[in-house]
Amino acid sequence: MSSSVSPLAPKSYPDMPALRGVRMATAAAGIKYKNRTDVLLMVFDKPAAVAGVFTRSKCPSAPVDFCRANLPHGVARAVVVNSGNANAFTGVKGRSATALTAKSAAEAVGCSENEVYLASTGVIGEPLDATKFAGVLGNMHAQAIGAFWPEAAKAIMTTDTYPKVGTRTAQIDGVTITINGIAKGAGMIAPDMATMLSFVVTDADIVSPALQSLLAAGVGPSFNSVTVDSDTSTSDTLMLFATGAAAHDGQSRIEAADDPRLEDFKTALNDLLKDLALQVVRDGEGARKMVEITVSGAESDAAAKVVALSIANSPLVKTAVAGEDANWGRIVMAVGKSGEMADRDRLAIWFGNVRVAVNGERDPDYSEAQTSAVMKQEDIPVKVDLGLGEGTATVWTCDLTKEYVAINGDYRS
Amino acid sequence: MSSSVSPLAPKSYPDMPALRGVRMATAAAGIKYKNRTDVLLMVFDKPAAVAGVFTRSKCPSAPVDFCRANLPHGVARAVVVNSGNANAFTGVKGRSATALTAKSAAEAVGCSENEVYLASTGVIGEPLDATKFAGVLGNMHAQAIGAFWPEAAKAIMTTDTYPKVGTRTAQIDGVTITINGIAKGAGMIAPDMATMLSFVVTDADIVSPALQSLLAAGVGPSFNSVTVDSDTSTSDTLMLFATGAAAHDGQSRIEAADDPRLEDFKTALNDLLKDLALQVVRDGEGARKMVEITVSGAESDAAAKVVALSIANSPLVKTAVAGEDANWGRIVMAVGKSGEMADRDRLAIWFGNVRVAVNGERDPDYSEAQTSAVMKQEDIPVKVDLGLGEGTATVWTCDLTKEYVAINGDYRS
Repeated sequence: MSSSVSPLAPKSYPDMPALRGVRMATAAAGIKYKNRTDVLLMVFDKPAAVAGVFTRSKCPSAPVDFCRANLPHGVARAVVVNSGNANAFTGVKGRSATALTAKSAAEAVGCSENEVYLASTGVIGEPLDATKFAGVLGNMHAQAIGAFWPEAAKAIMTTDTYPKVGTRTAQIDGVTITINGIAKGAGMIAPDMATMLSFVVTDADIVSPALQSLLAAGVGPSFNSVTVDSDTSTSDTLMLFATGAAAHDGQSRIEAADDPRLEDFKTALNDLLKDLALQVVRDGEGARKMVEITVSGAESDAAAKVVALSIANSPLVKTAVAGEDANWGRIVMAVGKSGEMADRDRLAIWFGNVRVAVNGERDPDYSEAQTSAVMKQEDIPVKVDLGLGEGTATVWTCDLTKEYVAINGDYRS
Repeated sequence: MSSSVSPLAPKSYPDMPALRGVRMATAAAGIKYKNRTDVLLMVFDKPAAVAGVFTRSKCPSAPVDFCRANLPHGVARAVVVNSGNANAFTGVKGRSATALTAKSAAEAVGCSENEVYLASTGVIGEPLDATKFAGVLGNMHAQAIGAFWPEAAKAIMTTDTYPKVGTRTAQIDGVTITINGIAKGAGMIAPDMATMLSFVVTDADIVSPALQSLLAAGVGPSFNSVTVDSDTSTSDTLMLFATGAAAHDGQSRIEAADDPRLEDFKTALNDLLKDLALQVVRDGEGARKMVEITVSGAESDAAAKVVALSIANSPLVKTAVAGEDANWGRIVMAVGKSGEMADRDRLAIWFGNVRVAVNGERDPDYSEAQTSAVMKQEDIPVKVDLGLGEGTATVWTCDLTKEYVAINGDYRS
């Protein structure tokens, strides 16, 4: 964990209400360090519906493989998350470790092993000693409580400088539904230092296939639209659970993602996912500034996103932002290298509300002073119009600072 | 230009022989700064054959567009290269500037405008005042000499910390052929700070279409296998000229790239291209270490190159190298995010000759001390075997240091 909190950290945290049907506890299992909280247990006392999206890495961690295999069963009773060891690139030993952890959790909670979900973050390539979980999970299950969200968020931090939590409410059938979430991550993000994990729980009663559709749709404009350094972890995991406790208040079960009663819920869920994703970017390793990049006028939304991510991942764009330099030449470069259609002579670029380039040239009315004022802001909006079609996309990133290099290059010395 | 020379700079420079058929001169045209050499003229007194490969950017500079348009004519008489202004993203004004520069050069040299080639590097988005060339090109033509390669290499430097030159000889028909080249570049590389330019000249007598085939084949394992920061300039230009002067010694004209008499020439050309490309990486902005990444066992050579470039462009791999950290977990991450087929349990990774991971796990015989010794080297070989097929590729990159961030983020402050 870093000693100084990111300047982009939230100024205040929401009150995180308990959510019916889920309890949590943390413990120090000694995975890597002694006397450091390194395990989180989430327990669903009744079977919860479950959805998950995972890293696209071709070398996923053992817990990612394990979760993917359990997901078709559609039932969750327990989630075990540990920091200190990613259980990634651990071969056969990794599969043994996930099996043993699941067995310990199933015994502690009193459920089947295919109702257990796992996530690990920390060192890669080191065998995870899963016997350490057996000693703590029983106790954790006994002690787990509902009003524990901030503590849960803290337990899964690695290089994060602040815990990430969020909560929303929505109406289904006139019943007030709660959605709570936690996230960790401080890069996009790499083994050995970080990984993006997020766990979101609602008390709505929604079946697993519908939940999966909602999550798959929600991840695109949120977690899949943020980047810190273009590096994708072997362990990235986003899960959504529905305890169904709202059924007691008269919410009748939702069977399909296109049910019109879900409109308000979808809005709240997507807003929460975006909130959590942006908290991850704002804690990007070494970040001092947040950049919102909107590309319009592309041939398609997909093309717009490719261009936006090309800009967001460009080291030269990110170092320019760190230097408060309105270097729109580097934006042009990043548009050009994206591989998507672009016509130099139709391109227009804005920093904040200042249009710096238009029709393939510097804007004749461009004010260096106005642009410099934008670049001094903590939050910098960049807009690029390609002038070709109707496609749009927005992505978020942070600047690339010497501190990023220090965090990722110096920590061994 | 940076004040301190890269620690990876060549320890010595080759003697660069004059090459029959080409003369060069430099001048201070005042493009951006007063009294700084900023223009290079290369003159071919007799029409030279010509080949070129250019940036894949969708927003190329006006000189790149100009060169591409002239290339089908297949004849070069003059090359004008300027630093201080990239003439990129300059719209209609950019095309006027290339037209005027070509007209000035054609008048000075006494050739047609479609026998002129242009390259510009420097600030993007600023109109280039091409009238400044008119005053100097006539004089330059009169003063141009053959033994001028190091000076030519210096004239096109921007953030480069050393000039880049190379020379080779080869036999065709028993005649000794010379190939000389210069390059500039200190990133892969961005507008406003840098751009990769290289000009290679031989006295061999080879027709333009054959020359184009040789260059297209040669660029893959050389300039297209190096990366500093994954950012591609709007202006990247590599050109190959053949003066044909060796015909006087009895070399009969080569009409096709598959002519068996070219074997020795191809070897020498490819070796020179690789030499120049590696000189660019070794001058990467802020570079302290050079990394050679070889991927084997991929499904195809193309897949191997995608994986190798994913490793080479990963900020987390590059910062780890800067920190002398044998962080093979980040190599796994970069393999996984490449999108190419990979099987965690077949992966093996070496730093130098030390195998750190095998069969999807840390190598049990892995020595931390041996690996640390490798990481302290100036040149670090990384080898990854995917264990899937026969595809191989090698790429080169440098580390990512705080100095890179400083060069690209602080220079305005």
